[in-house]
Amino acid sequence: MTTANRRIVLAARPHGEPNPSHFRLEETRMPVAREGEVLLANRYLSLDPYMRGRMSAAKSYAEPVAIGETMVGATVAEVVASHHPDYRVGETVVGFGGWQDFAISDGRGLRRLDPAAAPVTTALGVLGMPGMTAYTGLLNIGRPKAGETVVVAAAAGPVGSLVGQIAKRKGARAVGIAGGPEKCAYLVDTLGFDAAIDHRAEDFPDTLAAACPSGIDVYFENVGGAVFDAVLPLLNNFARVPVCGLVSGYSATELPPGPDRVPVLMRAVLSKRLHLQGFIVWDFAAQEPEFLSEVGGWLRDGLIVHREDIVDGLENAPEAFAGLLKGRNFGKLIVRIG
Amino acid sequence: MTTANRRIVLAARPHGEPNPSHFRLEETRMPVAREGEVLLANRYLSLDPYMRGRMSAAKSYAEPVAIGETMVGATVAEVVASHHPDYRVGETVVGFGGWQDFAISDGRGLRRLDPAAAPVTTALGVLGMPGMTAYTGLLNIGRPKAGETVVVAAAAGPVGSLVGQIAKRKGARAVGIAGGPEKCAYLVDTLGFDAAIDHRAEDFPDTLAAACPSGIDVYFENVGGAVFDAVLPLLNNFARVPVCGLVSGYSATELPPGPDRVPVLMRAVLSKRLHLQGFIVWDFAAQEPEFLSEVGGWLRDGLIVHREDIVDGLENAPEAFAGLLKGRNFGKLIVRIG
Repeated sequence: MTTANRRIVLAARPHGEPNPSHFRLEETRMPVAREGEVLLANRYLSLDPYMRGRMSAAKSYAEPVAIGETMVGATVAEVVASHHPDYRVGETVVGFGGWQDFAISDGRGLRRLDPAAAPVTTALGVLGMPGMTAYTGLLNIGRPKAGETVVVAAAAGPVGSLVGQIAKRKGARAVGIAGGPEKCAYLVDTLGFDAAIDHRAEDFPDTLAAACPSGIDVYFENVGGAVFDAVLPLLNNFARVPVCGLVSGYSATELPPGPDRVPVLMRAVLSKRLHLQGFIVWDFAAQEPEFLSEVGGWLRDGLIVHREDIVDGLENAPEAFAGLLKGRNFGKLIVRIG
Repeated sequence: MTTANRRIVLAARPHGEPNPSHFRLEETRMPVAREGEVLLANRYLSLDPYMRGRMSAAKSYAEPVAIGETMVGATVAEVVASHHPDYRVGETVVGFGGWQDFAISDGRGLRRLDPAAAPVTTALGVLGMPGMTAYTGLLNIGRPKAGETVVVAAAAGPVGSLVGQIAKRKGARAVGIAGGPEKCAYLVDTLGFDAAIDHRAEDFPDTLAAACPSGIDVYFENVGGAVFDAVLPLLNNFARVPVCGLVSGYSATELPPGPDRVPVLMRAVLSKRLHLQGFIVWDFAAQEPEFLSEVGGWLRDGLIVHREDIVDGLENAPEAFAGLLKGRNFGKLIVRIG
């Protein structure tokens, strides 16, 4: 048995876009589980846009990762040693093992997986944090009604693709925004979106307007920037905007040039009676059982489709993460470890 | 009996701040009530910030007033002729009689007043549209809880003063923002606000921060601009922002200089999970009976205080309205007619 633990630590805080130089692969000694703890061998690491925020010193809803500290992240892991009454060796769990081969857990935040019920990687995507983000944000804040138009950006990603599919299940029209013709075709042909718009196209705002002839009732915001600019004039009275992420601005080093358009946004909020609300998935933690039951059922019954983009090797996580922020992945980005 | 009707029409659309030259006083023939209509003699005209929006060509939640058309506005009026089964001569009503001596109504939007229950002018203020705006916006969107901090600007006005007093009744801390020491003293000494801040003071943002040591949980937005800039960094996680008006920007002719701070606002919405929601009072029209009953009861029992600023003469409405947008009134601005 190996006695080393490879881990990826934050080497430097990026100013602008992160690249592999901001990370460092280290070998440390294998951690040891004490009483009340389990030793986890991470099998799959989830890479998600929120990690960009943890690389910055600015406090957001969570503390930043310290320089030299292991990068945080959700993992699917195997229990390889247990001094915890609830977990046995050989069980598969999902938790927050971080960017490393092995992790210690006292059981908090762990959830046992049944590999027979669904592929274990789904616990990082469609049946994990991204799926629950889509489910809780759309249903609690977006509240789409039959016949309404729901627009989501990064629509081929794990959050956006579920937002669109849930919108369809609620009888709404789903319009996805994604980067490039391949992802757009996937949205319509495979996921059943009513329309898909390539935000890289020159005439993106006009194409979006044409795809939303009755305006937009729900805009699930996970991108910001130019996409939000194109959406704002199309929002209908009483539109709901769950604000889940702003990935286009995560690596911005300065504000966009003027004029200051805050008054434009606020006037739209007032005159259209918009409802903008930020959220993070754990605000709705109490809804996890309902989410797992409902979306798990849809998945088993083949009513929803999901897609994974799996990268091999912990050492490739930094490069894959940098690509994630540029939209290079196609589906839920996961690193296979070991 | 007079045979002429004086009315004030929109003479020109203002570019920037309105002044009396944008209005014109005309004499027309007395209107005649036909079958199903009443003739109203307007006694009191309400002047409100929303009227600035109706002077502009841009469509908002309501159509603009056309050039040459009588300015719209709520009035308390006496029924002087009736061919309507529900109204008798001599009754006092509140409705939308506009900036004129006489008006015709088919009964839609009219409500009979009982002069014995409350002074009839209250139907334009604390028991009218401004009061209901405060009541519905604060309770439906702001939802203050005991111990929370509620901040409201234009706090000496009819909306703001009720927002603060309702917040106090719900056990919250009320902090008012107003222009000048006289209004600030009134907020604390007469209305019972916990603190009042003069937005004209040089150190306004610091003073506001000092008055909100536990941050801000509800910001009732009716001003925008520099006040909102000072409030935003003080908002707590899960703060609610009912967006009721943006009077500081109503006469702006261009956007503020850059940078574009929309990303700053959206990042705050996301990381603090803010809830921003625009509304107009009629979105909550179904709550009018509850509003009249509850706030009417508080008023009768002396539990809330209100203040009126009454200007004599229809011909003085344009000057008074221009002053309203500059915060020159002190209390609910009403024009006494005839």
